[in-house]
Amino acid sequence: MERIRTGILGATGTVGQRLIALLEHHPQFAVTAVAASDRSEGKRYAEACSWRLPGEMPAAVRTVVVQAPRPPLDCDIVLSSLPSDIAGPIELDFARAGYPVISNSAAHRMEETVPLLLPEVNPDHLALLESDGGKREQGFIVTNPNCSTIMIALALAPLAARFGIEAVVVSTMQALSGAGYPGVASLDITDNVLPFIANEEEKIARETRKILGRWNGSRIDPAPFPVSAQCHRVNVMDGHLAAVRVKLGSSAELTELEDAFTSFRGLPQQLGLPSAPEHPIVVRAEPDRPQPRLDRDAGGGMSVTVGRIARDEVLGHRFVALSHNTIRGAAGAAILNAELLAARGYICAGR
Amino acid sequence: MERIRTGILGATGTVGQRLIALLEHHPQFAVTAVAASDRSEGKRYAEACSWRLPGEMPAAVRTVVVQAPRPPLDCDIVLSSLPSDIAGPIELDFARAGYPVISNSAAHRMEETVPLLLPEVNPDHLALLESDGGKREQGFIVTNPNCSTIMIALALAPLAARFGIEAVVVSTMQALSGAGYPGVASLDITDNVLPFIANEEEKIARETRKILGRWNGSRIDPAPFPVSAQCHRVNVMDGHLAAVRVKLGSSAELTELEDAFTSFRGLPQQLGLPSAPEHPIVVRAEPDRPQPRLDRDAGGGMSVTVGRIARDEVLGHRFVALSHNTIRGAAGAAILNAELLAARGYICAGR
Amino acid sequence: MERIRTGILGATGTVGQRLIALLEHHPQFAVTAVAASDRSEGKRYAEACSWRLPGEMPAAVRTVVVQAPRPPLDCDIVLSSLPSDIAGPIELDFARAGYPVISNSAAHRMEETVPLLLPEVNPDHLALLESDGGKREQGFIVTNPNCSTIMIALALAPLAARFGIEAVVVSTMQALSGAGYPGVASLDITDNVLPFIANEEEKIARETRKILGRWNGSRIDPAPFPVSAQCHRVNVMDGHLAAVRVKLGSSAELTELEDAFTSFRGLPQQLGLPSAPEHPIVVRAEPDRPQPRLDRDAGGGMSVTVGRIARDEVLGHRFVALSHNTIRGAAGAAILNAELLAARGYICAGR
Amino acid sequence: MERIRTGILGATGTVGQRLIALLEHHPQFAVTAVAASDRSEGKRYAEACSWRLPGEMPAAVRTVVVQAPRPPLDCDIVLSSLPSDIAGPIELDFARAGYPVISNSAAHRMEETVPLLLPEVNPDHLALLESDGGKREQGFIVTNPNCSTIMIALALAPLAARFGIEAVVVSTMQALSGAGYPGVASLDITDNVLPFIANEEEKIARETRKILGRWNGSRIDPAPFPVSAQCHRVNVMDGHLAAVRVKLGSSAELTELEDAFTSFRGLPQQLGLPSAPEHPIVVRAEPDRPQPRLDRDAGGGMSVTVGRIARDEVLGHRFVALSHNTIRGAAGAAILNAELLAARGYICAGR
Repeated sequence: MERIRTGILGATGTVGQRLIALLEHHPQFAVTAVAASDRSEGKRYAEACSWRLPGEMPAAVRTVVVQAPRPPLDCDIVLSSLPSDIAGPIELDFARAGYPVISNSAAHRMEETVPLLLPEVNPDHLALLESDGGKREQGFIVTNPNCSTIMIALALAPLAARFGIEAVVVSTMQALSGAGYPGVASLDITDNVLPFIANEEEKIARETRKILGRWNGSRIDPAPFPVSAQCHRVNVMDGHLAAVRVKLGSSAELTELEDAFTSFRGLPQQLGLPSAPEHPIVVRAEPDRPQPRLDRDAGGGMSVTVGRIARDEVLGHRFVALSHNTIRGAAGAAILNAELLAARGYICAGR
Repeated sequence: MERIRTGILGATGTVGQRLIALLEHHPQFAVTAVAASDRSEGKRYAEACSWRLPGEMPAAVRTVVVQAPRPPLDCDIVLSSLPSDIAGPIELDFARAGYPVISNSAAHRMEETVPLLLPEVNPDHLALLESDGGKREQGFIVTNPNCSTIMIALALAPLAARFGIEAVVVSTMQALSGAGYPGVASLDITDNVLPFIANEEEKIARETRKILGRWNGSRIDPAPFPVSAQCHRVNVMDGHLAAVRVKLGSSAELTELEDAFTSFRGLPQQLGLPSAPEHPIVVRAEPDRPQPRLDRDAGGGMSVTVGRIARDEVLGHRFVALSHNTIRGAAGAAILNAELLAARGYICAGR
Repeated sequence: MERIRTGILGATGTVGQRLIALLEHHPQFAVTAVAASDRSEGKRYAEACSWRLPGEMPAAVRTVVVQAPRPPLDCDIVLSSLPSDIAGPIELDFARAGYPVISNSAAHRMEETVPLLLPEVNPDHLALLESDGGKREQGFIVTNPNCSTIMIALALAPLAARFGIEAVVVSTMQALSGAGYPGVASLDITDNVLPFIANEEEKIARETRKILGRWNGSRIDPAPFPVSAQCHRVNVMDGHLAAVRVKLGSSAELTELEDAFTSFRGLPQQLGLPSAPEHPIVVRAEPDRPQPRLDRDAGGGMSVTVGRIARDEVLGHRFVALSHNTIRGAAGAAILNAELLAARGYICAGR
Repeated sequence: MERIRTGILGATGTVGQRLIALLEHHPQFAVTAVAASDRSEGKRYAEACSWRLPGEMPAAVRTVVVQAPRPPLDCDIVLSSLPSDIAGPIELDFARAGYPVISNSAAHRMEETVPLLLPEVNPDHLALLESDGGKREQGFIVTNPNCSTIMIALALAPLAARFGIEAVVVSTMQALSGAGYPGVASLDITDNVLPFIANEEEKIARETRKILGRWNGSRIDPAPFPVSAQCHRVNVMDGHLAAVRVKLGSSAELTELEDAFTSFRGLPQQLGLPSAPEHPIVVRAEPDRPQPRLDRDAGGGMSVTVGRIARDEVLGHRFVALSHNTIRGAAGAAILNAELLAARGYICAGR
């Protein structure tokens, strides 16, 4: 099978490196172009990029020359992990030039015509691409949610489906890699917690409602429940953790919640997409799990781990969720989106 | 003025060391006896204790011989920081032997006749000592709250007084020193968060209600609102942080909340107790404060710092609170309790 | 091929867990017995052991019942990761009962008749087993070096062979997992360095000399050069780092050193032992490598990474070495020893 | 007494903030001008500077307007903590404009006519200011050493004086604050060690030789012994640690080394300079000291703590040294230099 030629925008950054690592042996995609907005233009990737993941930079990409993030690029689709402040117009340029753009950036997530895709949860939102008329031939943008939102929305999805949700209260403890590189200064986080991540609390609230919203035939009606998020940066490399309280729409035994989590499967599992974890949500029974270091790599970094399911005096129910913020929360999310788009025929080799 | 002769139970532990450090130059109390439950009995304190605070062990205590934690001890009062699993009967023995026991342990906190004292908040709860009849002559037990509860209850007190409280939702990020020594293994917490602290969530809920409860003339009616706590251990030396949502009993502008925090003063401030901070609650306006490393020492470690006051979509209002868990949250709390007891005539030199 | 039935002594500890994880899919060894000295006797392994490695406990071992570390055990050989304070007599008991004992413990390393085996460096030291007469039929003990010593000796071996060595000065920065569990208290190491590891400096000195010593036909003559070691514990999970200066016996260009490292191969590579890394020593050219987090997993955790090769004003030459202390430095070392013993016919299935 | 009006160059940086904090209540110096090279020009200091030290920004400096680092400034002297890459010409401009410049920057340290001053060790090097003819009236530059070098040279000084030194081998473990702000990215140092600090090894070698060199009547003859340094960044906020081996010029008992350290006093102690610690070198007998977190604040951050004095198989003697890198190693060093210059009449109020 011919592989889909893939360009990476923001290829030298934290998420860009993860994309390249995860695609190294991918059966459907091959990295054929790398682009970055910084001063690395014109250098070979091996020179332009200070590889910060354990292990070696994939050999195939070492000699690829870094280009400016402007069309045309030698590829069928682009995966974008550009910084949010510049992603907006660049991604639009690529879409207008006919490229399918699968983006991890926040720039277009909340636009009415752009799917905010979480393949296990809202694959029907891809209808937005159809409704958008002829545009699809001219390229399009599909986004994945914010790194924290992905795990929260994925964990809430089976509860919303089975019990209904009336309110969500979430407190996050987020990893350093979520801030990119150089990101958080070590002087700021050593022996410390930062109780602030710019725009994160707003993103979690509005993106969760969009993801869990309903396609009404012409647009997405956001889910009607309020979401309260307080976000904190903690001294952890990878793995966002969220303490969640949820007010359900109907009464529910704890075993029913656990069953809802454990039995949850989505379209990626049905289709057997290459990056789809067998268990989108893993439930752990130990009283002190999930933990970032021990659970972030569950399902190859694509599973959300849930634990500490209990009754809550104020909201009714509570649990703790965790996932790998640069795999399920960013690079892996974009790749799973691309896999779903390929399975559905929205993208293919030889555009 | 003659100083009150003070015995320290649990003198070699984390909180015991803090007690000794804070009392080094205290105007009212002098450490005359040290006791510990471990194998240090019979050794001089300097040999028995591996001093883990920055700076030198106070000279005066170096040659004091460590005794078993059994009455009699050469002192007028005892400050107890014994481990909870052994504190119960030992503290009772001292009280029965006529010693005022000021305890940081959880053993007796929830007993009906024992004050759970937070001097700025519920000094009237000392009425329990009166109602307890002749017992006072025979010694008594006064406890301070759990390290997290102290800062939460202190921050809630002015809101309860001004607006009323209907529900509280709190997510904590707690420091390593809260677990004592050796406490948390470095292999468990490096690059990690632990979403579990044994019994902590229950303590926060029930202690907060007792502290903010009302003395009805014969006992304490707990505050009627529900408290939901999710507790986490993070990689920070000192300084517990709490993300708090609160449903108030009446509408409140954010400036009113800020004013309630900032203007809050209690009996310790009126009486000018030596360990009372000028500002029990410090409000910071920066978007990324409070932070453990920068704010834990506010007010000599006795102030609670509050920041990020905002509206909350689910509960109505939110903020972040922080305090030093081994000073305001433990050793300093016990000493402030002792100072209030001295000011009120419950304890004195030459028992 | 029938697999060698393997018993693990100290199976619930940090190194014991690594042994079980590394043997999960091993072609030659199958874990058939687990033993531990603690209170886990009689429980199934899944209940007795708090699994602290990322990922799940291997399924096959979950239901194996933990036994006391006493012969007989249902196995052909034992791999021992017992704590040093109890390993001595227990390992001797097993050897006397006829078991080949492959030990990671320090107890017998320096005994005259016990090989201190580093398979790439001194496989000829196995001659000690021959010289020891009939004892082999009755079982024997083969030890691997201390976790720091392994990487130092492995890095020095090609230099000793090509240039000769006259003196070694090494300063280590060692990871937390080297101290076992619970090991180093988080209160001791957060925002800190500990300039002391009990007995470590002496072990590095004497074990390095034994490993690099010569089999003279009847015993091992230790290498004659002095070794100076200063050891420090740093806030790193896995991966010991050593800053090394070496006085060589002959002049050497830096490129010659690099070539000596890079071209180094040993018997495990010739024999294609399953755990043998293709490159025992990996040289990195970047000025800021090796780093524990980025390089500890090189060669599956079995390679030593060397960098910063340079001239030294005092000793002549210097470099920095790093390896994974619980893989190459402990569990993987024991397994590689076992593989060599199997290849040489010292151990086999169906003892 | 009139205080010397002091300008701070690089006032918003890590060392600049320390200078301002240490001068808040200084009896001789008053901060009257602040300058910075960044975009803070024209703002009040409170707005321009994100204060990162525990506690509040000193009130007196909050409203001072930040100026460009160009003469004239409203002050008698300038203390410079400018980044090395821009300090050179700026400091020269100030000196030429008649200002005494007391600099923490590396730019001019190795110039033949500039004293590299460590007041306890080489106050006679101030003769360079005399020899430099009329220049002194026109301003001059006095530098303090690199943060690591200060503690190494201070610890070596009494050994050089009493026994002579033939060679020094030092391995450092340096704190994050030594890299300034934002400095080291948290992604680079969490669960890691960086075996590289740009130019640091060379600085330690050549600066140590200059400090311990001899004034020969016309210039400084560097000390003749070789210095080998290997430098590492570790996950510690403040406090550089150095593992030192030293080859002495004559035999020495360990008690003699200890006595040399303990009894060492210099001119600052004789003169009673305000920032001079009573004990320039504190010796600790515990086997696991010095430690950064416990010992960095010894002597108000101005003492060097030495421990683990022992014989060394290769170099003869060894010890471990530690000091606070932004107090004794930077801001406090510059202030002590200024105090010595004032005591010697080189600077005064009302220039």
